[in-house]
Amino acid sequence: MARVSQEHLDARRRQILDGAARCFARNGFHATSMQDVLKEVGLSAGAVYRYFPGKEDIIAAITEETFAVIRGAFEGAARMTPPPTPDVLLGQVLGRVLAGQVHGLERRTFAALGVQLWSETLRDERLAALLDEAYATMRVVWAKLVDAYRSAGILGSDVLDDHVARTMIATAQGFIVQEALFGDVRPEVVEEGLRGLMSMNHPKIS
Amino acid sequence: MARVSQEHLDARRRQILDGAARCFARNGFHATSMQDVLKEVGLSAGAVYRYFPGKEDIIAAITEETFAVIRGAFEGAARMTPPPTPDVLLGQVLGRVLAGQVHGLERRTFAALGVQLWSETLRDERLAALLDEAYATMRVVWAKLVDAYRSAGILGSDVLDDHVARTMIATAQGFIVQEALFGDVRPEVVEEGLRGLMSMNHPKIS
Repeated sequence: MARVSQEHLDARRRQILDGAARCFARNGFHATSMQDVLKEVGLSAGAVYRYFPGKEDIIAAITEETFAVIRGAFEGAARMTPPPTPDVLLGQVLGRVLAGQVHGLERRTFAALGVQLWSETLRDERLAALLDEAYATMRVVWAKLVDAYRSAGILGSDVLDDHVARTMIATAQGFIVQEALFGDVRPEVVEEGLRGLMSMNHPKIS
Repeated sequence: MARVSQEHLDARRRQILDGAARCFARNGFHATSMQDVLKEVGLSAGAVYRYFPGKEDIIAAITEETFAVIRGAFEGAARMTPPPTPDVLLGQVLGRVLAGQVHGLERRTFAALGVQLWSETLRDERLAALLDEAYATMRVVWAKLVDAYRSAGILGSDVLDDHVARTMIATAQGFIVQEALFGDVRPEVVEEGLRGLMSMNHPKIS
């Protein structure tokens, strides 16, 4: 057997994941078979099974990879002093994620992949366990960021960090829904919209 | 044929919609057949077809009804002076919607119905057209609310009303995703989280 470089192995793995992501985004996880994936990536069953024994393994890899990108962006932000505010940060992160920098997918296709993933999670316990864990990690990472806001004097309200973190996560999730269904989620929509929210205060009781 | 009261017709229609909503939330729109719906509501095909010629019509009715509840809450809020701020309003609306006041579904089941609906929309053009229209209306209604914030001196930033409206819609959509996947979206999470976001300001450049 010929020696194969790590670079080649990585490129092949990438090729499989990106092709599978295109299939899932198009038809959902449930309706996509391993045969569909093989056809999309133009590889033999043997070549693909070497990397991924089954569809579930591909789904798990795609999910983990996507979360790693988002997590990385937020961990990086939490380390900055002062950290970028939610409007700037979410504008950047969503801009990056939706610009298809994860699986080379078009913005709207990548967003559709997210919605399909959530739908599939409702009937797949293994995927649900995976998402549970990723979500728990995400909450901790984002809550650290909220704590950094507090330390920098940016957060003016005495609320639980976790609640603010979950609200920021919800905004990101909701914009993924909007991009998948209606498109046109440009970074400036996210950034301006959040800046507007951040400028609001309870009306004075007069 | 016996005369049937409007009350009876309404109750029957309600029974079909609520049963179908339970089926869809459980198995998704695609995998649910009219047979499944008939079994769930315990009615004959003839009784159901009198109200809804096909599955698509039930889906359309459920979708319209759900949007009407949300739209009503926001239209009501926009008419108040000053209007309730996003934290209070979204806490109330999500509280009501997720409390199952729409189809008598449990919170998490209703949220799952939403996610299944979005997923189905990606492959159903008729549903996509319906959602497009509902979303367009929603944006207008919520933008009016943002305008009311501006008039009341609550909104302090010079951003497009539509961008703020879309961000508020995204928050609501994202919390529906979170409730469907992980549960535990209590009104105080939404309210406190948004209050935290609203208290944030760009750090002073020193």
